[in-house]
Amino acid sequence: MPLIFSLNCWGIHYLSKHCPQRYAMIGDLLCKEQHDIVLLQEVWSEKDFLSLKQKLASTHPHSHYFKSGVIGSGLAIYTKHRIHDTFLYRYSLNGYPYMAHHGDWFGGKAVGLAILNIGSLTANIYVTHLHAEYCRDKDSYLPHRVVQAWELQQFIRHTSAGADLVILGGDLNMHPQDLGNRLLRTSTGLRDSYSETAKFDGCENGMTLIADNPFISQKELGPFEKGIRIDYILFKDSSKAEIYCDFMSTTKGSVPDHPFPYSDHEALTAELRLETRTRTEAENDRKVMSQDALVDIVTEARTEVKVGLHCAERMRYTATRTGVMGLALLFLELAIAAVPWLALGAEQPFPRTSFYMLAALCFAILVTTFLLYIFYTMELKSLQGAEDQMRLAVGSLQERLRGFPLAQPHSSQRRPPEGLEPSAFDPEE
Amino acid sequence: MPLIFSLNCWGIHYLSKHCPQRYAMIGDLLCKEQHDIVLLQEVWSEKDFLSLKQKLASTHPHSHYFKSGVIGSGLAIYTKHRIHDTFLYRYSLNGYPYMAHHGDWFGGKAVGLAILNIGSLTANIYVTHLHAEYCRDKDSYLPHRVVQAWELQQFIRHTSAGADLVILGGDLNMHPQDLGNRLLRTSTGLRDSYSETAKFDGCENGMTLIADNPFISQKELGPFEKGIRIDYILFKDSSKAEIYCDFMSTTKGSVPDHPFPYSDHEALTAELRLETRTRTEAENDRKVMSQDALVDIVTEARTEVKVGLHCAERMRYTATRTGVMGLALLFLELAIAAVPWLALGAEQPFPRTSFYMLAALCFAILVTTFLLYIFYTMELKSLQGAEDQMRLAVGSLQERLRGFPLAQPHSSQRRPPEGLEPSAFDPEE
Repeated sequence: MPLIFSLNCWGIHYLSKHCPQRYAMIGDLLCKEQHDIVLLQEVWSEKDFLSLKQKLASTHPHSHYFKSGVIGSGLAIYTKHRIHDTFLYRYSLNGYPYMAHHGDWFGGKAVGLAILNIGSLTANIYVTHLHAEYCRDKDSYLPHRVVQAWELQQFIRHTSAGADLVILGGDLNMHPQDLGNRLLRTSTGLRDSYSETAKFDGCENGMTLIADNPFISQKELGPFEKGIRIDYILFKDSSKAEIYCDFMSTTKGSVPDHPFPYSDHEALTAELRLETRTRTEAENDRKVMSQDALVDIVTEARTEVKVGLHCAERMRYTATRTGVMGLALLFLELAIAAVPWLALGAEQPFPRTSFYMLAALCFAILVTTFLLYIFYTMELKSLQGAEDQMRLAVGSLQERLRGFPLAQPHSSQRRPPEGLEPSAFDPEE
Repeated sequence: MPLIFSLNCWGIHYLSKHCPQRYAMIGDLLCKEQHDIVLLQEVWSEKDFLSLKQKLASTHPHSHYFKSGVIGSGLAIYTKHRIHDTFLYRYSLNGYPYMAHHGDWFGGKAVGLAILNIGSLTANIYVTHLHAEYCRDKDSYLPHRVVQAWELQQFIRHTSAGADLVILGGDLNMHPQDLGNRLLRTSTGLRDSYSETAKFDGCENGMTLIADNPFISQKELGPFEKGIRIDYILFKDSSKAEIYCDFMSTTKGSVPDHPFPYSDHEALTAELRLETRTRTEAENDRKVMSQDALVDIVTEARTEVKVGLHCAERMRYTATRTGVMGLALLFLELAIAAVPWLALGAEQPFPRTSFYMLAALCFAILVTTFLLYIFYTMELKSLQGAEDQMRLAVGSLQERLRGFPLAQPHSSQRRPPEGLEPSAFDPEE
């Protein structure tokens, strides 16, 4: 009976209200409820991810934070089940960098995949957060969001062929019947736990952005006075397992004994029931890959990535230092300009040409170093993300090797092609 | 006996030597040899893709061009077999935008996937081009290339679970035993057609960048005097089919009756032999999805994407126009500045302050519009790519519907979960 939880945490420090207190509340809730799989969005700060990880160490020993974009993807997963593999797909479109007040571009919106075993079943768990809708009537981001939904369904379809169970949780920023939502459900065959659930306890119509939430202004909801449903838990079963949603609930805007809710979004919880189908097919003849060789290679690759990380860090540091120097130069220049202005009556002419040339130079330095800083930050995120995934893979491989003490030695001989070559990172069955 | 062809076309107009002539030669070769699957890299201009498409219309009726990045991914596929579905994964790292003379960043390097049927088998065909190696001893791009190899193997592993046959062709920019190459082969189980082939005819050691090629300077090859092997055709079989490589060949630097070769890289051809295994497993109970509903939704999505396309085009046009105005202003200013300089003896003072202010303004306009132009170009590429894929999917769905005249009518009722819900775009079996 896996219990799935999804919440958009609204974790923008200094901008979101009561951010640290809300994270503490979310941590307490997760410790208490002990969901099998927790899918969080808008965990913009990695520090928050890490402090939650520490808090949930005993209840949810496995976790992953998906890195992407300038700020990050904001996507995180905590689970009771071992994560075997992860993969991140960055949407090719995600708003505009100069719409900084909307901030979506800097967030590097993406879909994260974590592969884990629930009992004997291989589960593909997806978590995502699509571009926000700021104005429904005149939504300039709609093509971007449709492309995101398109890429999301592509990613799920193409990566879930080997899964016995598919679960997608997240903030889709789309109403149930919006184009992107229909596109996603129809093309992947994912079913909506709210529509499927046997019992429901929560907001009217399963809404997740409600007027009763004190963090929500009526203006945000526009014509939908009571609220809208834009967060989802979707699922899909397979020939190996049937899934039913026995119970679903949402939070209802306020939290007992607390002055404010967990977030501006409501949290979703779905209680899924899995029924293993009797397998009529013969299992594929699976073999242990030369996994110890792979451990070595991945470890080597990790080292290489770390070298790149240090490089990028150094470059970003240089950019920062140059930027600071440009700023200092600008202040110096302003100070020099202030001198004749203060020394009234002084007759020497002000060197205008040099002044403007120097100002232009300072400006160019500041713009360039700022752009470079952003770029290196993106690079660092990607490198760190890859490094994380490699570490996870090595851990998973090593664990498997401990379970197969008689694994084949390093070998370059090719095996006769008797069965589907299993991917080395495939979870055990 | 599918015949696979792979070539890095070196298609940089005005920079690559004899570009149009070489494309003509490549077209002639492809028409004559009639390979089943042609995988091309560095087809930087979509015009070249289209003119080849026209030329190959009778021999290779199906094709796809993968769009990405500022310039494009340069990846193209032509095939005799119907392409059912495509998917593009953009590598998260790909060099630096300011290393414009290397140009990789602007190319938006990626891996393209095309799903097609060869006989009764579902084949996942991948084509890719990784970041170039400009200096082997001091390769600042190595971490980037390792991350690309990492993402490539992730992408192949996660997307090929449903495939009976996996083929990867492309310019990996890595020597056979380079880290990224080992990572790729070991983690995916892909086998190298050069190492596996029963018969080989081509350059020594299967080299694809050779000293005998007149477009290659000895400096590029560095310590590898005779050449290096960096282009590959890799494959992997499954429980449904066995693959053998019966014959492999490369071009050898010169082409009979032509003054120069096809490209700076050598072309690869692999003749693969497929042997269908007797299926011991029961086929999954596949059903026709409510595909006509999906056709409608995808068509609607396509319309939305087209709206976005027009928007982006308009915005790019505005940016261009503003940029041209900025340039005109700059010239006007220069002309005004030239007047007192030409009218020697004129006594009126030159308005320095206004001159520098105006120059700074022109400069700011030019920089901003240039950055915007690049950004909108990227946006256009992504939108066009999505639109292409949607069109392809609609075509594929409609074709399937014609084959299933008794397909279910539009229906929102959910089917009982009896079997793996087939993805609606899955190729027929």
